[in-house]
Amino acid sequence: MLEVCLLGTGGMMPMPRRYLTSMLVRYNGLSILTDCGEGTQIALRQAGYSPNPIGIMCFTHYHADHISGLPGMLLSMGNSDRTEPLLMIGPRGLERVVGALRVIAPELPFEIKYREIKEASEDIAFEGGFIRAFRVNHNVTCYGYSIEIKRSGRFDAEAAKAAGIPLKYWNRLQHGQIIEEDGVRYTPDMVMGAERRGLKVTYSTDTRPTDSIAENAKDADLFICEGMYSEADKFEKALEHKHMMFKEAAQLAAKAQPKEMWLTHYSPSLFKPEQYMDEVRAIFPAAKAGKDGMSVDLNFDED
Amino acid sequence: MLEVCLLGTGGMMPMPRRYLTSMLVRYNGLSILTDCGEGTQIALRQAGYSPNPIGIMCFTHYHADHISGLPGMLLSMGNSDRTEPLLMIGPRGLERVVGALRVIAPELPFEIKYREIKEASEDIAFEGGFIRAFRVNHNVTCYGYSIEIKRSGRFDAEAAKAAGIPLKYWNRLQHGQIIEEDGVRYTPDMVMGAERRGLKVTYSTDTRPTDSIAENAKDADLFICEGMYSEADKFEKALEHKHMMFKEAAQLAAKAQPKEMWLTHYSPSLFKPEQYMDEVRAIFPAAKAGKDGMSVDLNFDED
Repeated sequence: MLEVCLLGTGGMMPMPRRYLTSMLVRYNGLSILTDCGEGTQIALRQAGYSPNPIGIMCFTHYHADHISGLPGMLLSMGNSDRTEPLLMIGPRGLERVVGALRVIAPELPFEIKYREIKEASEDIAFEGGFIRAFRVNHNVTCYGYSIEIKRSGRFDAEAAKAAGIPLKYWNRLQHGQIIEEDGVRYTPDMVMGAERRGLKVTYSTDTRPTDSIAENAKDADLFICEGMYSEADKFEKALEHKHMMFKEAAQLAAKAQPKEMWLTHYSPSLFKPEQYMDEVRAIFPAAKAGKDGMSVDLNFDED
Repeated sequence: MLEVCLLGTGGMMPMPRRYLTSMLVRYNGLSILTDCGEGTQIALRQAGYSPNPIGIMCFTHYHADHISGLPGMLLSMGNSDRTEPLLMIGPRGLERVVGALRVIAPELPFEIKYREIKEASEDIAFEGGFIRAFRVNHNVTCYGYSIEIKRSGRFDAEAAKAAGIPLKYWNRLQHGQIIEEDGVRYTPDMVMGAERRGLKVTYSTDTRPTDSIAENAKDADLFICEGMYSEADKFEKALEHKHMMFKEAAQLAAKAQPKEMWLTHYSPSLFKPEQYMDEVRAIFPAAKAGKDGMSVDLNFDED
């Protein structure tokens, strides 16, 4: 099971009852946090989580509303006696920006590892899955992220029998091991069917629409996408500051066909996002206006 | 009128329903903010204020819970098209720390002026009053602040008449001007009584009790004081990390005799400060457990 929580839904500045946009994904004991603006640690606690198990942090870019909560989050992780290293992923400049912010969080009981993304798309593996960073189109270098969980194929007992593989090796083959005995070699592909559909959540914010976003969100279980402005007269502003309209997010989702899309990163001027969802759903029906603390448990298909 | 609002009452980390300790003082169109931890701009808006009119910011010290909200606050001030310069006051290192944090808030439409406090006590004047910074005793250099509004004496019409001062000069003398005419010199002290009691609010946090705190809070209208821990078994912790117990704050107040004391900067482990106030009030009766957003309007004595 992959648990996804949209901790906040605000853009630009945190507000009473709307924290800054940030996503927490939990899988198999690992928490992955994407973006950490001012107040994210409060939103995290409000949603019932703790900072301690965050093993990976992804940053889309270094505008304050996406990273200003980092020093406090690091200190709270440190205060909870965490000692495991923390992996940070983000565009070029990551170590420099984090280093500067750590002027007020200089001492931590855990190591920080940095992975600076330079290519248009890069994959970073973790146990059971991988994170794909893909470049988007903002006024500074900015990345979207997909978090994917792999699912192996079904074990084919008939194939194993037909190949004469001793029963005692079945379990190890099923877990991906290669076995050699008396000059005979047994490999997992002899007993395993094709890889099955896994789980995927895609997060993209602070960008104009791009083909790459639609490709990266393709068939995602959940696509969390920026919808900074809803009203047509804000389009100039969206163009100027390289943000996205509700409708544009809907059009991306219509191309990508995720199972569901949630909008987020609302302008402070946007009071009731729900009011504008009809025109979004006219383009892509499985759309929801994200709310602070909204969460979902994603499970493998039953097959 | 001096308006004082305790924006938050938390220490160490911001929590749902308890923002970090910060005080907003408003006088005559000027807002003075003391400390700005993560979430202070949210607390400020929650209490109904705006970041724009903040003309002076005081920092007690540079632990994250007292300054981590600065980049976001500066950006919010910039977004509201503020152009007036901002004066920052704090211990040595102010410009270096703020400079580092501004890696995520590099462009602002207003100038920042720095006043680094080096002496045990320093006064900084503003129109109508002054701020007194006084060193306290924490594990890094830390200052408390008093904000004082001056009040001139009463105009003494009898004295003016007796001295034969022409009526046309009375108003100017009353406003502090010196007048010379035909070799005769009229000075305000000829017509004004002794300076009357003004207004004073004193703020001290992150410190062990010191005589200087009691002296500086002497006769304040409001003394906002750290009460990090309430239970006796936390005393070792208070000593180690140089914080204050509820009782110790009460003893300081008993010496200083402010009109009222509010406790703040509660440990995250302290859920209901009100439960421990009886023993505080046994020592100093005019004590309140501070709450987020608690405010008071201080007025000159009626005399």
